[in-house]
Amino acid sequence: MNQDTDFLKQAIALAYVNVEQGGRPFGAVIVKDGKIIAQAVNEVVRSKDPTAHAELLAIRAASRYLDSPSLTGCTVFASGHPCPMCMGAMRMAGIEGVTYAYSNDDASPYGLSTAEVYADLAKPFDQQSMRIRHLPVRLGGEPELYAHWHGC
Amino acid sequence: MNQDTDFLKQAIALAYVNVEQGGRPFGAVIVKDGKIIAQAVNEVVRSKDPTAHAELLAIRAASRYLDSPSLTGCTVFASGHPCPMCMGAMRMAGIEGVTYAYSNDDASPYGLSTAEVYADLAKPFDQQSMRIRHLPVRLGGEPELYAHWHGC
Repeated sequence: MNQDTDFLKQAIALAYVNVEQGGRPFGAVIVKDGKIIAQAVNEVVRSKDPTAHAELLAIRAASRYLDSPSLTGCTVFASGHPCPMCMGAMRMAGIEGVTYAYSNDDASPYGLSTAEVYADLAKPFDQQSMRIRHLPVRLGGEPELYAHWHGC
Repeated sequence: MNQDTDFLKQAIALAYVNVEQGGRPFGAVIVKDGKIIAQAVNEVVRSKDPTAHAELLAIRAASRYLDSPSLTGCTVFASGHPCPMCMGAMRMAGIEGVTYAYSNDDASPYGLSTAEVYADLAKPFDQQSMRIRHLPVRLGGEPELYAHWHGC
């Protein structure tokens, strides 16, 4: 647990440094076998990339380090509660677990909470605030897409 | 609606080309003011980056094109039902809506559905299969992180 606290403190320290450099207050580290293999800060302001959250960039860095898209056996330590995109990214990468220090309740007074987006995303697709539409369009004369992939 | 079908067909065509080139069967385009401003395919196999989904790469390309992390007024056309990471990314970027052609039911026989991950992510955090833990660690002697950011 003490080591986990140290990893979390490192993520928070990164967030403080990022604020000093004009970035948003988020940092993350990824740990495998008791060692930090990747770390990142939120780079949305600098890069103008809306996906450049600390956790997502740390996942990308860890996959480069491991030369694999699979991050099984890895855990994430994030300064703040991960947003739905980053939580989804962890699941897609096979991350084992995530520990965070600052909650959405801590973040709410500063407009940094994603609790409302989480609540919206938990609704059925047709009741969410972003329009999600299924149009079963197909290209004519082709084998079915997924079967084609399966056969390749 | 006909134009929407064309955008969706373009996303599917990209997916077919990606399969031919050894990639996964996913493509996406992003439309603003009736024109495609970005497009991408799934590059996970080639790049070994678990976040290199078609929709996420298209979002990054659109933000470069617009020189902004905000994609308000943009809509996504994706060959397949977006995964939770990509759905979260759309929300973070302010995407207006998403239309997809192949459903999770279509994808399920080929192991490409993310319906189970969606169901898991809709549960309360402490009941999900990936361990999510809140440790309210703080660095001593610093101003509170979010207040510090707010004051910068």
